[in-house]
Amino acid sequence: MNAADLFKHETETTDLAASQVLFAEGESADCMFVLLEGAVDIRIGGETVEQSTRGALLGEMALIDRAPRGATVVATEPSRLARVDERRFNFIIQQNPFFARHVMKVLVDRLRHMNEAHGAGASPSPADRG
Amino acid sequence: MNAADLFKHETETTDLAASQVLFAEGESADCMFVLLEGAVDIRIGGETVEQSTRGALLGEMALIDRAPRGATVVATEPSRLARVDERRFNFIIQQNPFFARHVMKVLVDRLRHMNEAHGAGASPSPADRG
Repeated sequence: MNAADLFKHETETTDLAASQVLFAEGESADCMFVLLEGAVDIRIGGETVEQSTRGALLGEMALIDRAPRGATVVATEPSRLARVDERRFNFIIQQNPFFARHVMKVLVDRLRHMNEAHGAGASPSPADRG
Repeated sequence: MNAADLFKHETETTDLAASQVLFAEGESADCMFVLLEGAVDIRIGGETVEQSTRGALLGEMALIDRAPRGATVVATEPSRLARVDERRFNFIIQQNPFFARHVMKVLVDRLRHMNEAHGAGASPSPADRG
């Protein structure tokens, strides 16, 4: 699924101009975002670690565990996002188990990716638990 | 939440003796397990990367993305587990959004842990996205 489809009728969007910051590393967090249009860079310590496009979930980790933002998200072109706070997140999960599965899949993909990046086989990692 | 509480009335459990293997690295997967009693080791390439106790989710990554098991799970003492297949997993998520949130939290904890293990700050990683 593309998460952007779930929010296609969203009227109150968060709109960013190119190079505008959505949120910054270390900030406290009470929501996540779904990228509806545009493109953003995910930056850690000033370095771009990922580029995200339509449908990307942004800041879902901090929403889930309430830790501060671990990355900075910057628009690289004019972008439109849906804001999802705790209450809405819980509501969507309850109404739409596919969205819950999608969030899990995004997290699992990231764990598998991390594991490959850090040399599966050579150095076993707790992330790769099947 | 402790996931074992959700399954405390489980009658058809998977029971393991000490040193019995629950599943092995590379096996195809169609279910996950919740550890109700006992303790298991998570092993990758023969090396123990984690020890799990009551309430641990086992094999949820492979259930979520349908990839082969990334680790071997071995009981270190007599253990009792609830087996959760795809259909049941989807049902529980729908009935109990707290379980869905719990699965997400477990995955996020693992990502944060991975990130620390691989040197957050020194080497930015896509897992640490806030």
